Amino acid sequence: MAEQKATNVTWHKGLVSRDDRCKILCQSGVTIWFTGLSASGKSTVAVALEEALFERGKLSYRLDSDNVRLGINKDLGFSKEDRKENIRRVGEIAKLFGDAGTISLSSFISPYKSDRDEVRRSHETENIKFVEVFVDCPLSVAEKRDPKGLYKKARAGEIKNFTGIDDPYETPVDPEVHLRTDESTVEEEVTAIMEYLEINKIIEARHLIRADDGNDSAAVGV
Amino acid sequence: MAEQKATNVTWHKGLVSRDDRCKILCQSGVTIWFTGLSASGKSTVAVALEEALFERGKLSYRLDSDNVRLGINKDLGFSKEDRKENIRRVGEIAKLFGDAGTISLSSFISPYKSDRDEVRRSHETENIKFVEVFVDCPLSVAEKRDPKGLYKKARAGEIKNFTGIDDPYETPVDPEVHLRTDESTVEEEVTAIMEYLEINKIIEARHLIRADDGNDSAAVGV
Repeated sequence: MAEQKATNVTWHKGLVSRDDRCKILCQSGVTIWFTGLSASGKSTVAVALEEALFERGKLSYRLDSDNVRLGINKDLGFSKEDRKENIRRVGEIAKLFGDAGTISLSSFISPYKSDRDEVRRSHETENIKFVEVFVDCPLSVAEKRDPKGLYKKARAGEIKNFTGIDDPYETPVDPEVHLRTDESTVEEEVTAIMEYLEINKIIEARHLIRADDGNDSAAVGV
Repeated sequence: MAEQKATNVTWHKGLVSRDDRCKILCQSGVTIWFTGLSASGKSTVAVALEEALFERGKLSYRLDSDNVRLGINKDLGFSKEDRKENIRRVGEIAKLFGDAGTISLSSFISPYKSDRDEVRRSHETENIKFVEVFVDCPLSVAEKRDPKGLYKKARAGEIKNFTGIDDPYETPVDPEVHLRTDESTVEEEVTAIMEYLEINKIIEARHLIRADDGNDSAAVGV
Protein backbone atom coordinates (compact mmCIF):
# COMPACT_ATOMS: atom_id res chain seq x y z
CA MET A 1 0.00 0.00 0.00
CA ALA A 2 1.13 3.54 -0.72
CA GLU A 3 2.15 5.37 2.39
CA GLN A 4 0.01 8.35 3.44
CA LYS A 5 2.36 11.31 2.88
CA ALA A 6 0.19 14.37 3.38
CA THR A 7 -0.86 14.99 6.96
CA ASN A 8 -3.12 17.89 7.97
CA VAL A 9 -5.81 16.62 5.62
CA THR A 10 -9.34 15.68 6.60
CA TRP A 11 -12.34 14.45 4.60
CA HIS A 12 -14.42 17.43 3.52
CA LYS A 13 -18.09 16.46 3.76
CA GLY A 14 -20.50 18.13 1.39
CA LEU A 15 -24.21 18.81 1.60
CA VAL A 16 -25.03 16.53 -1.34
CA SER A 17 -24.67 12.86 -0.48
CA ARG A 18 -23.92 9.77 -2.54
CA ASP A 19 -27.60 8.84 -2.14
CA ASP A 20 -28.62 12.20 -3.56
CA ARG A 21 -26.47 11.64 -6.62
CA CYS A 22 -27.85 8.13 -7.04
CA LYS A 23 -31.37 9.58 -6.89
CA ILE A 24 -30.61 11.94 -9.80
CA LEU A 25 -29.32 8.95 -11.76
CA CYS A 26 -31.88 6.37 -10.62
CA GLN A 27 -29.04 3.88 -10.09
CA SER A 28 -26.34 2.91 -7.59
CA GLY A 29 -22.64 3.44 -8.08
CA VAL A 30 -20.75 0.18 -8.49
CA THR A 31 -17.36 -0.96 -9.71
CA ILE A 32 -17.37 -3.83 -12.21
CA TRP A 33 -13.81 -5.10 -12.38
CA PHE A 34 -12.80 -7.27 -15.35
CA THR A 35 -9.62 -9.26 -14.79
CA GLY A 36 -7.93 -11.71 -17.17
CA LEU A 37 -5.08 -12.29 -19.59
CA SER A 38 -4.31 -9.94 -22.45
CA ALA A 39 -6.69 -10.82 -25.34
CA SER A 40 -8.99 -12.75 -22.98
CA GLY A 41 -11.83 -10.43 -24.01
CA LYS A 42 -12.04 -7.97 -21.11
CA SER A 43 -12.49 -4.83 -23.19
CA THR A 44 -14.78 -6.57 -25.66
CA VAL A 45 -17.27 -7.60 -22.98
CA ALA A 46 -16.90 -4.24 -21.18
CA VAL A 47 -17.74 -2.36 -24.40
CA ALA A 48 -20.76 -4.63 -24.98
CA LEU A 49 -21.92 -4.27 -21.36
CA GLU A 50 -21.56 -0.49 -21.60
CA GLU A 51 -23.89 -0.54 -24.60
CA ALA A 52 -26.41 -2.80 -22.84
CA LEU A 53 -26.41 -0.51 -19.80
CA PHE A 54 -26.82 2.55 -22.02
CA GLU A 55 -29.87 0.96 -23.64
CA ARG A 56 -31.37 0.74 -20.16
CA GLY A 57 -30.60 4.41 -19.55
CA LYS A 58 -27.81 3.64 -17.08
CA LEU A 59 -24.75 5.87 -16.81
CA SER A 60 -21.60 3.80 -17.00
CA TYR A 61 -18.02 4.70 -17.75
CA ARG A 62 -15.19 2.48 -18.91
CA LEU A 63 -11.80 2.70 -17.31
CA ASP A 64 -9.58 0.81 -19.68
CA SER A 65 -6.00 -0.31 -19.24
CA ASP A 66 -4.97 1.30 -22.50
CA ASN A 67 -6.91 4.51 -21.93
CA VAL A 68 -5.71 5.05 -18.38
CA ARG A 69 -2.11 4.30 -19.26
CA LEU A 70 -2.24 7.12 -21.83
CA GLY A 71 -3.52 9.55 -19.20
CA ILE A 72 -3.30 9.48 -15.43
CA ASN A 73 -0.95 6.47 -15.32
CA LYS A 74 1.33 7.48 -18.16
CA ASP A 75 4.20 7.59 -15.65
CA LEU A 76 3.88 3.84 -14.94
CA GLY A 77 5.44 0.86 -16.70
CA PHE A 78 4.94 -2.88 -16.21
CA SER A 79 7.23 -3.79 -13.31
CA LYS A 80 5.50 -5.46 -10.38
CA GLU A 81 5.64 -2.21 -8.40
CA ASP A 82 4.27 -0.15 -11.30
CA ARG A 83 1.48 -2.67 -11.96
CA LYS A 84 0.56 -2.49 -8.27
CA GLU A 85 0.45 1.30 -8.37
CA ASN A 86 -1.50 1.20 -11.65
CA ILE A 87 -4.17 -0.97 -10.04
CA ARG A 88 -4.18 1.03 -6.81
CA ARG A 89 -4.83 4.28 -8.67
CA VAL A 90 -7.50 2.79 -10.91
CA GLY A 91 -9.18 1.31 -7.84
CA GLU A 92 -9.23 4.77 -6.26
CA ILE A 93 -10.65 6.34 -9.43
CA ALA A 94 -13.30 3.61 -9.64
CA LYS A 95 -14.26 4.41 -6.04
CA LEU A 96 -14.64 8.09 -6.91
CA PHE A 97 -16.91 7.13 -9.82
CA GLY A 98 -18.88 4.79 -7.55
CA ASP A 99 -19.25 7.59 -5.02
CA ALA A 100 -20.46 9.81 -7.87
CA GLY A 101 -23.21 7.24 -8.59
CA THR A 102 -21.67 5.92 -11.80
CA ILE A 103 -21.26 2.29 -12.89
CA SER A 104 -17.58 2.04 -13.74
CA LEU A 105 -16.32 -0.78 -15.94
CA SER A 106 -12.64 -1.36 -15.28
CA SER A 107 -10.79 -3.68 -17.66
CA PHE A 108 -7.31 -4.43 -16.42
CA ILE A 109 -5.24 -7.59 -16.59
CA SER A 110 -4.68 -6.99 -12.84
CA PRO A 111 -2.69 -10.24 -12.56
CA TYR A 112 -1.91 -10.13 -8.83
CA LYS A 113 -4.57 -11.35 -6.41
CA SER A 114 -3.25 -9.18 -3.58
CA ASP A 115 -3.69 -6.02 -5.70
CA ARG A 116 -7.27 -6.95 -6.67
CA ASP A 117 -8.09 -7.87 -3.07
CA GLU A 118 -6.75 -4.53 -1.88
CA VAL A 119 -9.08 -2.73 -4.32
CA ARG A 120 -11.99 -4.86 -3.07
CA ARG A 121 -11.15 -4.20 0.57
CA SER A 122 -10.85 -0.49 -0.07
CA HIS A 123 -14.29 -0.48 -1.77
CA GLU A 124 -15.85 -2.36 1.14
CA THR A 125 -14.40 0.15 3.59
CA GLU A 126 -16.29 2.92 1.82
CA ASN A 127 -19.37 0.80 1.22
CA ILE A 128 -19.10 0.84 -2.57
CA LYS A 129 -20.09 -2.37 -4.34
CA PHE A 130 -17.28 -4.27 -6.06
CA VAL A 131 -18.06 -6.93 -8.68
CA GLU A 132 -15.08 -8.97 -9.82
CA VAL A 133 -15.58 -10.52 -13.26
CA PHE A 134 -13.02 -13.20 -14.11
CA VAL A 135 -12.60 -13.10 -17.88
CA ASP A 136 -11.22 -16.60 -18.15
CA CYS A 137 -9.62 -17.89 -21.34
CA PRO A 138 -6.83 -20.44 -21.78
CA LEU A 139 -3.46 -18.87 -22.55
CA SER A 140 -3.26 -20.90 -25.78
CA VAL A 141 -6.51 -19.32 -27.03
CA ALA A 142 -5.53 -15.78 -25.99
CA GLU A 143 -2.16 -16.23 -27.64
CA LYS A 144 -3.79 -17.46 -30.83
CA ARG A 145 -6.12 -14.40 -30.92
CA ASP A 146 -3.26 -11.96 -30.21
CA PRO A 147 -5.06 -9.00 -31.89
CA LYS A 148 -2.25 -6.55 -31.17
CA GLY A 149 0.62 -8.97 -31.80
CA LEU A 150 1.75 -8.55 -28.20
CA TYR A 151 2.18 -12.27 -27.40
CA LYS A 152 4.35 -12.63 -30.48
CA LYS A 153 6.52 -9.74 -29.30
CA ALA A 154 6.65 -11.17 -25.78
CA ARG A 155 7.69 -14.60 -27.08
CA ALA A 156 10.38 -12.88 -29.15
CA GLY A 157 11.61 -11.11 -26.01
CA GLU A 158 10.69 -7.68 -27.40
CA ILE A 159 8.24 -7.06 -24.52
CA LYS A 160 9.31 -7.96 -21.00
CA ASN A 161 7.10 -8.74 -17.97
CA PHE A 162 4.24 -9.90 -20.17
CA THR A 163 1.48 -11.63 -18.19
CA GLY A 164 1.24 -15.33 -19.03
CA ILE A 165 4.65 -15.39 -20.71
CA ASP A 166 7.27 -14.13 -18.27
CA ASP A 167 4.99 -12.68 -15.60
CA PRO A 168 2.37 -14.59 -13.58
CA TYR A 169 -1.43 -14.36 -13.71
CA GLU A 170 -3.00 -15.26 -10.37
CA THR A 171 -6.46 -16.75 -10.96
CA PRO A 172 -9.36 -15.24 -8.96
CA VAL A 173 -10.53 -17.60 -6.24
CA ASP A 174 -14.13 -16.52 -5.76
CA PRO A 175 -15.12 -13.92 -8.36
CA GLU A 176 -18.69 -12.63 -8.46
CA VAL A 177 -18.92 -13.57 -12.14
CA HIS A 178 -16.84 -16.18 -14.00
CA LEU A 179 -16.84 -16.04 -17.80
CA ARG A 180 -15.16 -18.50 -20.17
CA THR A 181 -14.76 -16.42 -23.29
CA ASP A 182 -13.50 -19.36 -25.37
CA GLU A 183 -16.81 -21.16 -24.79
CA SER A 184 -19.43 -18.38 -24.88
CA THR A 185 -20.57 -15.49 -27.04
CA VAL A 186 -20.25 -11.87 -25.98
CA GLU A 187 -24.07 -11.71 -25.76
CA GLU A 188 -24.10 -14.62 -23.29
CA GLU A 189 -21.38 -12.97 -21.25
CA VAL A 190 -23.25 -9.66 -21.07
CA THR A 191 -26.40 -11.54 -20.07
CA ALA A 192 -24.52 -13.32 -17.27
CA ILE A 193 -23.27 -10.05 -15.85
CA MET A 194 -26.65 -8.34 -16.23
CA GLU A 195 -28.29 -11.25 -14.38
CA TYR A 196 -25.78 -10.92 -11.59
CA LEU A 197 -26.49 -7.18 -11.33
CA GLU A 198 -30.25 -7.79 -11.33
CA ILE A 199 -30.24 -10.71 -8.88
CA ASN A 200 -28.13 -8.70 -6.47
CA LYS A 201 -30.37 -5.65 -6.95
CA ILE A 202 -27.51 -3.51 -8.25
CA ILE A 203 -29.74 -2.59 -11.16
CA GLU A 204 -33.47 -3.23 -11.31
CA ALA A 205 -34.52 -6.36 -13.18
CA ARG A 206 -36.19 -5.74 -16.53
CA HIS A 207 -37.78 -9.20 -16.41
CA LEU A 208 -38.15 -10.61 -12.92
CA ILE A 209 -37.52 -14.17 -14.05
CA ARG A 210 -34.96 -15.32 -11.55
CA ALA A 211 -35.03 -12.55 -9.02
CA ASP A 212 -35.26 -14.69 -5.90
CA ASP A 213 -33.63 -18.01 -6.62
CA GLY A 214 -31.00 -17.42 -3.96
CA ASN A 215 -28.07 -17.30 -6.37
CA ASP A 216 -25.50 -14.69 -5.59
CA SER A 217 -23.06 -15.49 -8.32
CA ALA A 218 -23.18 -16.14 -12.03
CA ALA A 219 -21.20 -18.16 -14.51
CA VAL A 220 -21.30 -18.74 -18.19
CA GLY A 221 -19.38 -21.25 -20.24
CA VAL A 222 -17.88 -22.89 -17.13
CA MET B 1 4.89 16.63 -17.85
CA ALA B 2 5.07 12.97 -16.88
CA GLU B 3 6.85 10.87 -19.47
CA GLN B 4 4.78 8.24 -21.31
CA LYS B 5 6.19 4.94 -20.02
CA ALA B 6 3.87 2.28 -21.39
CA THR B 7 4.14 1.74 -25.11
CA ASN B 8 1.96 -0.77 -26.99
CA VAL B 9 -1.16 1.01 -25.73
CA THR B 10 -3.86 2.51 -27.92
CA TRP B 11 -7.12 4.30 -27.12
CA HIS B 12 -9.95 1.75 -26.99
CA LYS B 13 -13.04 3.33 -28.52
CA GLY B 14 -16.41 2.14 -27.25
CA LEU B 15 -19.84 2.12 -28.81
CA VAL B 16 -21.28 4.60 -26.32
CA SER B 17 -20.00 8.13 -26.87
CA ARG B 18 -19.56 11.09 -24.58
CA ASP B 19 -22.60 12.65 -26.29
CA ASP B 20 -24.64 9.54 -25.46
CA ARG B 21 -23.73 9.83 -21.80
CA CYS B 22 -24.53 13.55 -21.80
CA LYS B 23 -27.94 12.73 -23.29
CA ILE B 24 -28.72 10.37 -20.39
CA LEU B 25 -27.75 13.14 -17.98
CA CYS B 26 -29.24 16.10 -19.89
CA GLN B 27 -26.02 18.03 -19.27
CA SER B 28 -22.48 18.43 -20.56
CA GLY B 29 -19.37 17.31 -18.75
CA VAL B 30 -17.24 20.21 -17.55
CA THR B 31 -14.38 20.79 -15.13
CA ILE B 32 -14.82 23.69 -12.73
CA TRP B 33 -11.41 24.35 -11.22
CA PHE B 34 -11.21 26.41 -8.02
CA THR B 35 -7.75 27.81 -7.28
CA GLY B 36 -6.68 30.01 -4.38
CA LEU B 37 -4.86 30.18 -1.06
CA SER B 38 -5.60 27.81 1.79
CA ALA B 39 -8.68 29.18 3.63
CA SER B 40 -9.59 31.40 0.65
CA GLY B 41 -12.97 29.64 0.50
CA LYS B 42 -12.51 27.16 -2.37
CA SER B 43 -14.22 24.21 -0.72
CA THR B 44 -16.92 26.39 0.81
CA VAL B 45 -18.04 27.74 -2.55
CA ALA B 46 -17.61 24.32 -4.21
CA VAL B 47 -19.89 22.73 -1.60
CA ALA B 48 -22.48 25.49 -2.08
CA LEU B 49 -22.27 25.22 -5.88
CA GLU B 50 -22.68 21.45 -5.65
CA GLU B 51 -25.90 21.99 -3.74
CA ALA B 52 -27.17 24.59 -6.22
CA LEU B 53 -26.44 22.23 -9.12
CA PHE B 54 -28.16 19.36 -7.31
CA GLU B 55 -31.25 21.50 -6.87
CA ARG B 56 -31.31 21.86 -10.65
CA GLY B 57 -31.01 18.09 -11.06
CA LYS B 58 -27.43 18.28 -12.31
CA LEU B 59 -24.90 15.55 -11.51
CA SER B 60 -21.76 17.05 -10.09
CA TYR B 61 -18.90 15.58 -8.11
CA ARG B 62 -16.37 17.33 -5.91
CA LEU B 63 -12.71 16.48 -6.17
CA ASP B 64 -11.24 18.03 -3.08
CA SER B 65 -7.62 18.50 -2.15
CA ASP B 66 -8.16 16.86 1.21
CA ASN B 67 -10.26 13.99 -0.14
CA VAL B 68 -7.93 13.16 -3.01
CA ARG B 69 -4.84 13.31 -0.84
CA LEU B 70 -6.38 10.67 1.41
CA GLY B 71 -7.00 8.38 -1.60
CA ILE B 72 -5.40 8.30 -5.00
CA ASN B 73 -2.71 10.86 -4.15
CA LYS B 74 -1.82 9.56 -0.71
CA ASP B 75 1.70 8.87 -1.99
CA LEU B 76 2.30 12.59 -2.63
CA GLY B 77 3.59 15.32 -0.32
CA PHE B 78 3.97 19.07 -0.85
CA SER B 79 7.28 19.49 -2.67
CA LYS B 80 7.05 21.35 -5.98
CA GLU B 81 7.35 18.04 -7.87
CA ASP B 82 4.67 16.35 -5.75
CA ARG B 83 2.33 19.34 -6.07
CA LYS B 84 2.82 19.20 -9.83
CA GLU B 85 2.02 15.48 -9.92
CA ASN B 86 -0.95 16.02 -7.58
CA ILE B 87 -2.43 18.57 -9.98
CA ARG B 88 -1.60 16.49 -13.06
CA ARG B 89 -3.43 13.46 -11.67
CA VAL B 90 -6.44 15.45 -10.53
CA GLY B 91 -6.59 17.09 -13.95
CA GLU B 92 -6.65 13.65 -15.56
CA ILE B 93 -9.39 12.45 -13.17
CA ALA B 94 -11.42 15.60 -13.85
CA LYS B 95 -11.11 14.87 -17.57
CA LEU B 96 -12.41 11.32 -17.05
CA PHE B 97 -15.39 12.76 -15.15
CA GLY B 98 -15.95 15.32 -17.89
CA ASP B 99 -15.83 12.55 -20.49
CA ALA B 100 -18.36 10.66 -18.35
CA GLY B 101 -20.70 13.68 -18.61
CA THR B 102 -20.25 14.82 -15.02
CA ILE B 103 -19.67 18.36 -13.74
CA SER B 104 -16.57 18.01 -11.57
CA LEU B 105 -15.75 20.64 -8.98
CA SER B 106 -12.03 20.56 -8.22
CA SER B 107 -10.82 22.61 -5.24
CA PHE B 108 -7.05 22.71 -5.09
CA ILE B 109 -4.69 25.46 -4.06
CA SER B 110 -2.89 24.66 -7.37
CA PRO B 111 -0.43 27.50 -6.81
CA TYR B 112 1.63 27.17 -9.98
CA LYS B 113 0.32 28.74 -13.17
CA SER B 114 2.18 26.27 -15.38
CA ASP B 115 0.46 23.31 -13.68
CA ARG B 116 -3.01 24.86 -14.07
CA ASP B 117 -2.28 25.81 -17.68
CA GLU B 118 -1.19 22.25 -18.41
CA VAL B 119 -4.52 20.95 -17.06
CA ARG B 120 -6.36 23.50 -19.21
CA ARG B 121 -4.37 22.60 -22.32
CA SER B 122 -4.96 18.90 -21.74
CA HIS B 123 -8.73 19.54 -21.41
CA GLU B 124 -8.77 21.56 -24.62
CA THR B 125 -6.96 18.77 -26.46
CA GLU B 126 -9.82 16.43 -25.60
CA ASN B 127 -12.50 19.05 -26.11
CA ILE B 128 -13.66 19.08 -22.48
CA LYS B 129 -14.66 22.47 -21.09
CA PHE B 130 -12.41 23.93 -18.39
CA VAL B 131 -13.62 26.76 -16.17
CA GLU B 132 -10.97 28.30 -13.93
CA VAL B 133 -12.42 30.02 -10.87
CA PHE B 134 -9.95 32.24 -9.04
CA VAL B 135 -10.98 32.20 -5.38
CA ASP B 136 -9.21 35.41 -4.50
CA CYS B 137 -8.71 36.49 -0.92
CA PRO B 138 -5.87 38.54 0.60
CA LEU B 139 -3.34 36.46 2.50
CA SER B 140 -4.00 38.52 5.65
CA VAL B 141 -7.70 37.56 5.56
CA ALA B 142 -7.02 33.88 4.82
CA GLU B 143 -4.47 33.80 7.63
CA LYS B 144 -6.93 35.39 10.03
CA ARG B 145 -9.60 32.77 9.13
CA ASP B 146 -7.14 29.85 9.46
CA PRO B 147 -9.92 27.31 10.26
CA LYS B 148 -7.49 24.39 10.55
CA GLY B 149 -4.70 26.31 12.26
CA LEU B 150 -2.41 25.59 9.32
CA TYR B 151 -1.09 29.14 8.85
CA LYS B 152 -0.18 29.21 12.53
CA LYS B 153 1.75 25.97 12.14
CA ALA B 154 3.40 27.24 8.96
CA ARG B 155 4.46 30.49 10.68
CA ALA B 156 5.87 28.39 13.52
CA GLY B 157 7.84 26.34 11.00
CA GLU B 158 5.90 23.17 11.84
CA ILE B 159 4.62 22.89 8.23
CA LYS B 160 7.07 23.48 5.38
CA ASN B 161 6.29 24.53 1.78
CA PHE B 162 3.05 26.24 2.83
CA THR B 163 1.55 28.35 0.04
CA GLY B 164 1.65 32.06 0.84
CA ILE B 165 4.15 31.59 3.67
CA ASP B 166 7.24 29.82 2.33
CA ASP B 167 5.88 28.70 -1.05
CA PRO B 168 4.56 30.97 -3.83
CA TYR B 169 1.01 31.39 -5.12
CA GLU B 170 0.94 32.46 -8.76
CA THR B 171 -2.18 34.53 -9.44
CA PRO B 172 -4.36 33.48 -12.41
CA VAL B 173 -4.02 35.93 -15.30
CA ASP B 174 -7.33 35.46 -17.11
CA PRO B 175 -9.63 33.14 -15.13
CA GLU B 176 -13.15 32.48 -16.41
CA VAL B 177 -14.56 33.57 -13.04
CA HIS B 178 -12.89 35.83 -10.45
CA LEU B 179 -14.32 35.81 -6.94
CA ARG B 180 -13.25 38.03 -4.04
CA THR B 181 -14.37 36.01 -1.04
CA ASP B 182 -13.48 38.75 1.45
CA GLU B 183 -16.00 41.08 -0.24
CA SER B 184 -18.88 38.80 -1.21
CA THR B 185 -21.22 36.22 0.28
CA VAL B 186 -21.15 32.56 -0.72
CA GLU B 187 -24.58 33.06 -2.34
CA GLU B 188 -23.22 35.86 -4.54
CA GLU B 189 -20.26 33.70 -5.50
CA VAL B 190 -22.46 30.74 -6.48
CA THR B 191 -24.64 33.11 -8.50
CA ALA B 192 -21.60 34.47 -10.34
CA ILE B 193 -20.49 30.97 -11.32
CA MET B 194 -24.00 29.88 -12.27
CA GLU B 195 -24.34 32.96 -14.48
CA TYR B 196 -21.06 32.12 -16.17
CA LEU B 197 -22.26 28.56 -16.80
CA GLU B 198 -25.59 29.79 -18.16
CA ILE B 199 -24.18 32.58 -20.35
CA ASN B 200 -21.71 30.16 -21.87
CA LYS B 201 -24.44 27.55 -22.35
CA ILE B 202 -22.67 25.00 -20.16
CA ILE B 203 -25.95 24.58 -18.31
CA GLU B 204 -29.29 25.82 -19.53
CA ALA B 205 -30.43 29.13 -18.08
CA ARG B 206 -33.31 28.90 -15.61
CA HIS B 207 -34.24 32.52 -16.24
CA LEU B 208 -33.07 33.83 -19.59
CA ILE B 209 -32.43 37.29 -18.23
CA ARG B 210 -28.91 37.92 -19.48
CA ALA B 211 -28.42 35.04 -21.84
CA ASP B 212 -27.18 37.06 -24.82
CA ASP B 213 -25.41 40.10 -23.49
CA GLY B 214 -22.10 38.97 -24.97
CA ASN B 215 -20.34 38.54 -21.63
CA ASP B 216 -18.03 35.59 -21.47
CA SER B 217 -16.64 36.05 -18.00
CA ALA B 218 -18.01 36.82 -14.59
CA ALA B 219 -16.76 38.56 -11.51
CA VAL B 220 -18.09 39.25 -8.08
CA GLY B 221 -16.63 41.50 -5.44
CA VAL B 222 -13.84 42.72 -7.73
